[in-house]
Amino acid sequence: MSKMIQDTGNVPQKDVNAAGTRANKGGLEGVVAATTALSKVDGLAGRLIYRGYNIHDLARTTTFEEVAHLLWFGHLPNREELASLQARFAAERTMPEQALQVIRALPAQTEPMDVLRTAVSAWGAVAISGKASVEQAIALTARFPLFLAAFHRLRQGQEPLAAKEELGHAANYLYLLSGQVPKEEHVRGLNSYLVLLADHGMNASTFTARIVASTESDIASSVVAALGALKGPLHGGAPSKVQDMLHAIGTVDNAEPWLRSAVARGDRLMGFGHRVYKTEDPRAEELREMSRVADPEGFVLARRVEELALAILEEQKPGRRLYTNVEFYSAVLMNSVGLTGDLFTPTFAVSRVAGWTAHILEQSQNNRLIRPEADYTGPMNLSFVPLDQRA
Amino acid sequence: MSKMIQDTGNVPQKDVNAAGTRANKGGLEGVVAATTALSKVDGLAGRLIYRGYNIHDLARTTTFEEVAHLLWFGHLPNREELASLQARFAAERTMPEQALQVIRALPAQTEPMDVLRTAVSAWGAVAISGKASVEQAIALTARFPLFLAAFHRLRQGQEPLAAKEELGHAANYLYLLSGQVPKEEHVRGLNSYLVLLADHGMNASTFTARIVASTESDIASSVVAALGALKGPLHGGAPSKVQDMLHAIGTVDNAEPWLRSAVARGDRLMGFGHRVYKTEDPRAEELREMSRVADPEGFVLARRVEELALAILEEQKPGRRLYTNVEFYSAVLMNSVGLTGDLFTPTFAVSRVAGWTAHILEQSQNNRLIRPEADYTGPMNLSFVPLDQRA
Repeated sequence: MSKMIQDTGNVPQKDVNAAGTRANKGGLEGVVAATTALSKVDGLAGRLIYRGYNIHDLARTTTFEEVAHLLWFGHLPNREELASLQARFAAERTMPEQALQVIRALPAQTEPMDVLRTAVSAWGAVAISGKASVEQAIALTARFPLFLAAFHRLRQGQEPLAAKEELGHAANYLYLLSGQVPKEEHVRGLNSYLVLLADHGMNASTFTARIVASTESDIASSVVAALGALKGPLHGGAPSKVQDMLHAIGTVDNAEPWLRSAVARGDRLMGFGHRVYKTEDPRAEELREMSRVADPEGFVLARRVEELALAILEEQKPGRRLYTNVEFYSAVLMNSVGLTGDLFTPTFAVSRVAGWTAHILEQSQNNRLIRPEADYTGPMNLSFVPLDQRA
Repeated sequence: MSKMIQDTGNVPQKDVNAAGTRANKGGLEGVVAATTALSKVDGLAGRLIYRGYNIHDLARTTTFEEVAHLLWFGHLPNREELASLQARFAAERTMPEQALQVIRALPAQTEPMDVLRTAVSAWGAVAISGKASVEQAIALTARFPLFLAAFHRLRQGQEPLAAKEELGHAANYLYLLSGQVPKEEHVRGLNSYLVLLADHGMNASTFTARIVASTESDIASSVVAALGALKGPLHGGAPSKVQDMLHAIGTVDNAEPWLRSAVARGDRLMGFGHRVYKTEDPRAEELREMSRVADPEGFVLARRVEELALAILEEQKPGRRLYTNVEFYSAVLMNSVGLTGDLFTPTFAVSRVAGWTAHILEQSQNNRLIRPEADYTGPMNLSFVPLDQRA
């Protein structure tokens, strides 16, 4: 384990006036880059709000489609509105020819995040133009599972499948990957994950998407850019390392010696600590419960590792307030519903594309080009020397 | 003409202390997002500096390869270093199989910026991983002309060509497009353009590239993201509209009536005005002279339109200090060397990829995740209502 996860898209809330005094911390920490009515992250209270609703209320009882509706349209759908959105999703769950050609062209060992980035770019090139719209947001969001599942099947020597109209978003994704109608508890677990990760303030990929949108570029260009940012291990690119750790530990009995020797070697423990949350991440709390239900057996090891890791971290770094972060039980849950480790980050994207596209729509409604300044630290007034006189 | 170009990647220089007071202007105007030793833009003095050298010194006597060396390695190359870089460029000027498959899969009417974004993404998926390196920067920069020219030839029913080892970067690009060894004045004109546009402080695409790099994602993901931002008409996506305007005007005699009636209709004139430069953009000055040499005949109309437009703008909006921006003579110059309008923005990318990759390398050397905050303006504490009870 090389590095503790520093960020999974979390943003503390500070007022605008704080920007000046904190700008020199680097990384734009404390600088308010935009206003948004989409989500609020309160790192001190451990709260996450989507358009006024607490994430705990949403996680257990809503579908991903309802949350996407909330983010895109500003309110939770009633039955008719939900049926309408479901129908639009179903109509968009088709594989565009160019995207499939691109997916087939990439070798089996390609990282699924790179496949997704390329397929979205190719499809955007042929299907997306003009001002960003909710229709485009639906069309993009609907296709993420198709692109990923097509690649996943092709790399296993199987042909891609067509989506099933009667299944929702989470269920279709699992079906498209495996070819089997998934178990109800797997659908429920994955759906909750998709709800919980759909938006998270001005995280790096969302900020990237908004900057691209602020140039009046198209929505596919913005989403492709956001995928590149989410891929980075300091943002969304590391949850599979939690799984690697749990796999390496293997048994409950091995947990304490393994963790103690990792810490003694100076390794950081994956899935703990966070730049923003100074109390438990509300998403981690929900994901823990979902994991318990989805895979009671695997949960026993994960829970034991979590308890030991927190105790050891408190012992070694007292007062640092290191809590379980969102990636720990994300990994446990995604593993329990049958996803391979290299699909963890792409599955994060399957969820977050709802937030990205909502932010792009919000940015384009009252746009101003996002373009900061830089402090120049290089030399000045160097005398130019022509090529043939250079030493 | 719908909209004046608001930005071509220009950044005013303000000190860090200014951030607090200006943060609420929106669009991060006045907020210092990073330090850089690569370039300095002084909007008041009309100066542009690459690593200590004034752009005027570089524009007329250096090659794009020398400037890329300056940006990547920190100093202008001597003969040996330049020969070494040229050899590395030559070795990388090969068409990767996956990129060609992707380019062939896209229909002839696809926007070249979308083709470039997708080809870079596909090639990155198979060839790029690990920490960003100068080798990767060279490999990416070398291939932009190949990807664009391959698509350009395919859409005309011609097969892509192999690069010529004896030609430099600008000459190879023109050769790959046309199949003919280009005239010396065309090479010189395009080379100067590539030198002038290679970097420009913390513009939107460069900032996008740095944010993606700050997540520790790969260099291809960063460059793909930057391409999406450059595509936007508020950043790099509008120079062809200058050409459309000149084409619509047609003759010197028609210039004044055309411009007066455009202004009377409330249309904005393309190629004038800039958020940052309050005096002439130093790049516009150089590009004007290059255009005069590259196409003396076309220059006569462009110059007349420029003079009239500036006079009419001063008459209509006195004191607004509207000057010719970089896009005006960029369009004239690119047209004069034989590029079609839809290749203008991609050719901007052929140049700017040197700056993007230099910024990515700089970001990754002393990295901190770039992730600002947002001001939440939505509702709070809404009571959750289950689906079957919603109105």
